[in-house]
Amino acid sequence: MWKVTEQDLESIAIGAGILGTGGGGNPYVGMLRARQMIREFGPVKVLSSDELNSDDRIICVGGIGAPTVGIEKMRDKQAYYAMRAIEDYTGLKATALVSNEIGGSNSLEPLIPAAISGLPVVDADGMGRAFPQYHLKTYFVYGAPYAPLALADEKGNTMIIPEAISAHWVERMARAVTIQMGCVACYATTPMNAEQIRNTAVLDTLTLAKDLGDAVKRAREQHEDPIAGILDTHPGKVLFQGKIVDLERRTTQGFARGKVTIEGIGGYADDHMEIEFQNENLIASISGDLVCIVPDLICIVDTERAEPITTELLRYGFRVTVLGFPAPDLWTTPEGLAVAGPRAFGYEVDYTPIVI
Amino acid sequence: MWKVTEQDLESIAIGAGILGTGGGGNPYVGMLRARQMIREFGPVKVLSSDELNSDDRIICVGGIGAPTVGIEKMRDKQAYYAMRAIEDYTGLKATALVSNEIGGSNSLEPLIPAAISGLPVVDADGMGRAFPQYHLKTYFVYGAPYAPLALADEKGNTMIIPEAISAHWVERMARAVTIQMGCVACYATTPMNAEQIRNTAVLDTLTLAKDLGDAVKRAREQHEDPIAGILDTHPGKVLFQGKIVDLERRTTQGFARGKVTIEGIGGYADDHMEIEFQNENLIASISGDLVCIVPDLICIVDTERAEPITTELLRYGFRVTVLGFPAPDLWTTPEGLAVAGPRAFGYEVDYTPIVI
Repeated sequence: MWKVTEQDLESIAIGAGILGTGGGGNPYVGMLRARQMIREFGPVKVLSSDELNSDDRIICVGGIGAPTVGIEKMRDKQAYYAMRAIEDYTGLKATALVSNEIGGSNSLEPLIPAAISGLPVVDADGMGRAFPQYHLKTYFVYGAPYAPLALADEKGNTMIIPEAISAHWVERMARAVTIQMGCVACYATTPMNAEQIRNTAVLDTLTLAKDLGDAVKRAREQHEDPIAGILDTHPGKVLFQGKIVDLERRTTQGFARGKVTIEGIGGYADDHMEIEFQNENLIASISGDLVCIVPDLICIVDTERAEPITTELLRYGFRVTVLGFPAPDLWTTPEGLAVAGPRAFGYEVDYTPIVI
Repeated sequence: MWKVTEQDLESIAIGAGILGTGGGGNPYVGMLRARQMIREFGPVKVLSSDELNSDDRIICVGGIGAPTVGIEKMRDKQAYYAMRAIEDYTGLKATALVSNEIGGSNSLEPLIPAAISGLPVVDADGMGRAFPQYHLKTYFVYGAPYAPLALADEKGNTMIIPEAISAHWVERMARAVTIQMGCVACYATTPMNAEQIRNTAVLDTLTLAKDLGDAVKRAREQHEDPIAGILDTHPGKVLFQGKIVDLERRTTQGFARGKVTIEGIGGYADDHMEIEFQNENLIASISGDLVCIVPDLICIVDTERAEPITTELLRYGFRVTVLGFPAPDLWTTPEGLAVAGPRAFGYEVDYTPIVI
């Protein structure tokens, strides 16, 4: 057990920015929101999965919408409203919260209802990264229920999906209503038990996010290379370094979609990298050859300070380093790849794990 | 009390086609579906509002979507699924069903869950005509609750809206999910009590629909004028007669929208009528002068047989008679007009009642 204090939030935001592979909602905005709640209600306890009891009921909450909108129309307490709505619907009170995805602001989203209601959060999430759609969670791949689900906006509108024929249909219905709600909403799933968390979640990821951020901050303070600090903390590798020379990005059907082109610098001077994204970075190639494929993680950080850059903040001229990390093991099984491999995103290629 | 038998359905469908003012879903399709259910489960009892008891719980069901899609992708038992979903959500079992709108196939929609579950229907509806959107009901204008609401498709997906800041927000969320469901779904509202029905519904409209259809059929059989039969049964007037010479119609944002132009014949030979519609006919003008304005009813029937023509079936060359009827009194109050007057549909004109 540890506690998330105000001082931890900056580290978690940096780490979640890296693990978010460009998405999951702007982590800086998430940090500001979580800080306000922790200042008002106090630090939030973090339980590891083996500290959970058999009668615990863990509700997963998350933000849904387009990150491009989320930085202009900030979320407030929607995750708390959604938690209350699913509690009312199921008649089951939460004893803990858990993140839907460790990437971006969604890593911090559970802290808001947890702080308000005095509940702990579990050190785990349902992706070990970020993904653009609701159904792309290890929870659901390995049998935790994808419905009922509650959705809430900031105005006082809520929706429940009692049942659906698939997690993908929950995504379709929730996304359609999210767009009506102004492209920014939060959801809460039906409570999971401790065994479901242990069997279906990517574990210890809030600690990992904090450790990554701590390493970056420490390296910056000691005038060392923060990118080396990242790779010492979490095994991965540098895929490319260069300058952003082209960017296509549009907000469509509730997503931020596009492609970024990076011209090589230094040892990469004769090459260019292209990265395609849908909220998150999905596939990276160097001069036409694929070098990192979803569900492996493709993370763009600024070369000097290793500050992660989410897809909605990419800009022409940024000097960036692209990092690759292996996907969590739960994603590289046949069941995992069927849900979140390259073909699930429309890329007619096989998944080839990056070698680090 | 009377019973809807298989033989009554054709009359109700004709009457509901007239009262539907072009919308409410294709009445012929609705008749075929209701006939199948009544053949399988037997006739359905119809209770007048004064036969209701104080402990009755009356669920309103309706179809939602675009009529242009509904004639190709027919509804099945979605209204029954939606009824069960709202019963499960509220914990309250229905003792009767009621129509959301007497127009088109929606007049017959409650017969399907009623037949399956052996419940009666109430001789009333929430519009006394048809309207293109959920929130346009006298029920809600006069205080019956617009939420919770359940929505169901044919595949096994359901949605509940537990609360919303207005009936219009229920419409926005339900419409967005309906489009995902394939533009054809059914909803069920939280149960109303007998007093709410008596105070907020347009009463005796299922009987009116049947009487209108009986009058048309009788006139046809006796080689009399079926249009005179309509006007003898329900006070209204002939607004125009002619031939359809132009038609714009598109299915957009879940609605069938457009405009029909009719060239005068006989006593109307030098004029032309334009009617604008959004699922239903909303505003009619003769050579530029408004002659019938929503919420008054604008009904297009074929001149020879008085068969009502819904907006999705309008075609170039049809010889038609346009009838006008006064709106039910519940719509012509300031509260009623605020919700369903011409300005609510974007027409910057005042409502002027037709004179008959």
